[in-house]
Amino acid sequence: MVKQLTLYSAKVCPWAHRTELALKESGLPYKRYEIDLTAKPEWYAPKVNPASKVPAIAYGGPDVDPAEPSPDSVKLAESYVLLEFIADLSASTKPLLPSDPVARAKARFFVETVISKWGSVWYGIQNRGDDPSGILPAIEVLQNLLPAEGYAVGDWSIADAAVTPFIARAFVSLKNDAGAYAEGSGKKLYETLQSDPKYARLRQYYADVSGRDSFKETFFEDYLAERYIQRAATLRAEKKAKV
Amino acid sequence: MVKQLTLYSAKVCPWAHRTELALKESGLPYKRYEIDLTAKPEWYAPKVNPASKVPAIAYGGPDVDPAEPSPDSVKLAESYVLLEFIADLSASTKPLLPSDPVARAKARFFVETVISKWGSVWYGIQNRGDDPSGILPAIEVLQNLLPAEGYAVGDWSIADAAVTPFIARAFVSLKNDAGAYAEGSGKKLYETLQSDPKYARLRQYYADVSGRDSFKETFFEDYLAERYIQRAATLRAEKKAKV
Repeated sequence: MVKQLTLYSAKVCPWAHRTELALKESGLPYKRYEIDLTAKPEWYAPKVNPASKVPAIAYGGPDVDPAEPSPDSVKLAESYVLLEFIADLSASTKPLLPSDPVARAKARFFVETVISKWGSVWYGIQNRGDDPSGILPAIEVLQNLLPAEGYAVGDWSIADAAVTPFIARAFVSLKNDAGAYAEGSGKKLYETLQSDPKYARLRQYYADVSGRDSFKETFFEDYLAERYIQRAATLRAEKKAKV
Repeated sequence: MVKQLTLYSAKVCPWAHRTELALKESGLPYKRYEIDLTAKPEWYAPKVNPASKVPAIAYGGPDVDPAEPSPDSVKLAESYVLLEFIADLSASTKPLLPSDPVARAKARFFVETVISKWGSVWYGIQNRGDDPSGILPAIEVLQNLLPAEGYAVGDWSIADAAVTPFIARAFVSLKNDAGAYAEGSGKKLYETLQSDPKYARLRQYYADVSGRDSFKETFFEDYLAERYIQRAATLRAEKKAKV
């Protein structure tokens, strides 16, 4: 029997986006509830996720209004834990991980390795204004781990769900030159990534993952671009004021 | 058919210890090869793990001398990836994770949460000389996530494998007062952890996990104590020289 599943998410958050991609691909029915991260509902931490972060899932229990979570549902958190959870739930109906242990290990290694290179480096670029080209080593790691064509480990899997939101958000930032970094440096890197033969594998991979319905239905480029542009203006003004 | 499995490990390393616990519990046949982390064999990075860390596994291919790894085996790395790999390999013969998706998510959440609180804090205590009592919040997180009795999620699982090596090493350090921290502060905290009713759950959990054969066969307390004591003397001397 399929139990009720409610996802607490936020359009802006790459960690939450991971779980939306996996849920869409799984075909499992679920409700989605947007959490405004700048004004979290006061019931969210005590009733859903004590760490007060998205994503979180309420699973099982009665079918209630997501804004009034039931104590009878199980609450789960941490985006990669949720990806594995979704893959476990849909294992027999729509596999989101290969069945071969070696391929599963490669999927998990892909996530661990790409995100450990990408995460904190990109944070520094976007929020502290480090040079955007600092992301290139992470892109090279990604390209080296990808097979010659297709997804991370054969069919689309939670490994792709885990990584795609970060590439997508980096592209929105760079394309719009919308980060704390020096003006012009984002667009310049974006053009390189879009044209240099060296990054052909990245482009093809991104075309593959972003061409899927799961992505189109869960990614809000204009919404993100607007927020990034506003935030970049604030960060750059703060930087100038400090000089 | 069971394929050959070779584990590259190091007695001193908690990340490697995780995989030894899981392999022992799995009942899978394997070879173990000790890597001297202070003098790694020159073939290790190019032929086994480009990141040059332990643990790593060579799986499949011909049954060769571990010091002459075959290009025909698959090489896998990252300790938590390897724990899931071992659990996948032994799923039908000796389950090392529960089968229920919610219980599996709780196991993974346990690891993620405890290690993210424990890892870097303990590193600061042991190597930079931060006050050992800084580990208490991580211990409280661990105690709060544990059920009233038994292991992290029912039967012993890879969640216990992931966490046990860190508790074991902290105890060796504190008991011997063997870290970069102020002399006496380790022993003092150790006595508190061994006697204060507040830490009864930690003590019982550690008695349970360390009482298993898998632990007794893979943990080398005297060896670790000796190394920690030597290293602490060096770190404390360096600290004094700086003052």
